[in-house]
Amino acid sequence: VPDYPTPALVVDLDRVTANIRSMAGRAGERGLVLRPHAKTHKSPAIATMQVQAGAVGITVATIGEAEVFTSAGITDLFIAYPLWLDRERAIRLNTLAERATVRFGIDSAEAGAAAARALGGAVESLEVLVEIDSGQHRTGVSPRRAGELAAALERIGLRVAGAFTFPGHSYAPGSRTSAAHDEQTAMQQAAASMTAAGIPPRLLSGGSTPTAVFSDSAVLDEIRPGVYVFNDSQQWELGSCGTADIAAWVSATVVSRTGRRVVTDAGSKAMGADRAEWATGYGRLLDDPAARVVALSEHHATIEFADAAAAPEPGSAVRIVPNHICTTVNLADEYIVVSGTDGHRVVDRWPVAARGRNH
Amino acid sequence: VPDYPTPALVVDLDRVTANIRSMAGRAGERGLVLRPHAKTHKSPAIATMQVQAGAVGITVATIGEAEVFTSAGITDLFIAYPLWLDRERAIRLNTLAERATVRFGIDSAEAGAAAARALGGAVESLEVLVEIDSGQHRTGVSPRRAGELAAALERIGLRVAGAFTFPGHSYAPGSRTSAAHDEQTAMQQAAASMTAAGIPPRLLSGGSTPTAVFSDSAVLDEIRPGVYVFNDSQQWELGSCGTADIAAWVSATVVSRTGRRVVTDAGSKAMGADRAEWATGYGRLLDDPAARVVALSEHHATIEFADAAAAPEPGSAVRIVPNHICTTVNLADEYIVVSGTDGHRVVDRWPVAARGRNH
Repeated sequence: VPDYPTPALVVDLDRVTANIRSMAGRAGERGLVLRPHAKTHKSPAIATMQVQAGAVGITVATIGEAEVFTSAGITDLFIAYPLWLDRERAIRLNTLAERATVRFGIDSAEAGAAAARALGGAVESLEVLVEIDSGQHRTGVSPRRAGELAAALERIGLRVAGAFTFPGHSYAPGSRTSAAHDEQTAMQQAAASMTAAGIPPRLLSGGSTPTAVFSDSAVLDEIRPGVYVFNDSQQWELGSCGTADIAAWVSATVVSRTGRRVVTDAGSKAMGADRAEWATGYGRLLDDPAARVVALSEHHATIEFADAAAAPEPGSAVRIVPNHICTTVNLADEYIVVSGTDGHRVVDRWPVAARGRNH
Repeated sequence: VPDYPTPALVVDLDRVTANIRSMAGRAGERGLVLRPHAKTHKSPAIATMQVQAGAVGITVATIGEAEVFTSAGITDLFIAYPLWLDRERAIRLNTLAERATVRFGIDSAEAGAAAARALGGAVESLEVLVEIDSGQHRTGVSPRRAGELAAALERIGLRVAGAFTFPGHSYAPGSRTSAAHDEQTAMQQAAASMTAAGIPPRLLSGGSTPTAVFSDSAVLDEIRPGVYVFNDSQQWELGSCGTADIAAWVSATVVSRTGRRVVTDAGSKAMGADRAEWATGYGRLLDDPAARVVALSEHHATIEFADAAAAPEPGSAVRIVPNHICTTVNLADEYIVVSGTDGHRVVDRWPVAARGRNH
């Protein structure tokens, strides 16, 4: 039984340190700049560890996240999102740009025009990256249209530093290498298109946790993996981590048991309800690879074990590995930081400082 | 374009007031006590409106929620959850019991023994309700075992006031009336079992938003619907509300458009990722019943419209009705409170005071 109340978001200091060093080392070996996505952890403490281990800066998803990390001393940020700027957002972006290097994404000439309008004369202090669709089909332009968009943005007065993509279709079993290939091809095409349009990219940014190890510095300049600091059940099932690399979990108490099923006090309000079509459940147990979260309500996770003998006693604690740790972290106000064998020693508490900063 | 930043959680004061009055009226007409579940709104302002409209008190899911609402002046609370009490939880529960009438759930003799141990001599100040499984098969004992469990709890020294159930299997198309029937039957059996064991129930508590209108005071004493204050896409698709009854939504800005698809800045971190098997998408639009959220990432909701002409311009705002409003609310720090036609006038801001109180 842990000496903190459940449900709790727990991070293993030893493992998170190892994950941060390992990714920094791999990026360095491959000649790639590392700019980790901080939406995963939302923690200035972890961002600082990443920069100290060699990251050039961080990636964020929103202006609100950028504000939190800039206040914490991070001075190089990329907002990897096709921002639609109104006056309120433009003022906040300009304030950020006075204190840090800040870039953001654009995926249409309309969004560029809105940005130029909202930024007014301050447009010169910010650089943009054109977003490329490398196969996820969410946002971004097709690679062959990158030059046309870059030229349109430059005509409006925006400064185009290069292009970025997120190969999100790597989040499917057996898709890691093919998505990495798609990403390389798309970014090569985008670079050629921009060069042909007279705006050769100075920066090509890509990468996700599943594809990070396949990234090639012959194409990309930097990678932006996020989940690798903690990993989760999705990465476990995709094969991009082993269980020894799982550095965060939700500690929960068993409140009810029937045969080989137990119910815990951590439900979707503590873990998140993300479940990809290919996922084998709503989450897994760090200490029993055969167990699955088979049903999830707001304050109930129903976990099924191989047999009744494997099902833990009511009152005991279990360590649940959520499917998608980014959304889990966004539900918590703090991390319980543990260290030592099985993470039994509480050594610190870290605020999830950028939790809820969706704007 | 709204005069508050997006993504934002918006509540329509006129509609929420009407929903609160309507449910209070219906419960009164049927001779049922109303004890709304406050996990949906986590707002003392709304709980106060519910009590003023006739609710006897509120239901909560956790001790932490009870603490927030007790501090806000609510004096009659039921924690509708099979609590596993350790010393820390028992101390907090006792502190609550000094200021309010507090009941909680138990679904096993083991949990009862743990509660009695943790509460020590203070056991007399708190009443418990036995949890009955009326068909959801999550927690709770089968109705015919209610008497046996109640007797075991009384022997331990706990005071058993009655029984409760949550007919959660009402959350499926076409299941509202059959789930309500299951609930009635289960609670009748539970009452008979408890009476036969010499512990006749003084209180039988049930009800969910989908089954509330079918509840019968010949069996139940009180009902505990939660979602009805706001409604959501699940209730819309289950037929338990019309679009005019939807009193909360997520306001989002369109950041990208391709043909009949748009992407907005409200994703799973603002809306939640709940999606039942029978749901037609990850959410719907209040102003276009044909539109569906067809894909969801942390900061992207991809919405598909009937045709390109129906797809809104980048930069415009849309009102997204999440699938499950309880988990949406748990992601926000405040409500933007609006009033008037189409909810265009901001009249207040309410804190989501019990957000994240999972413990």
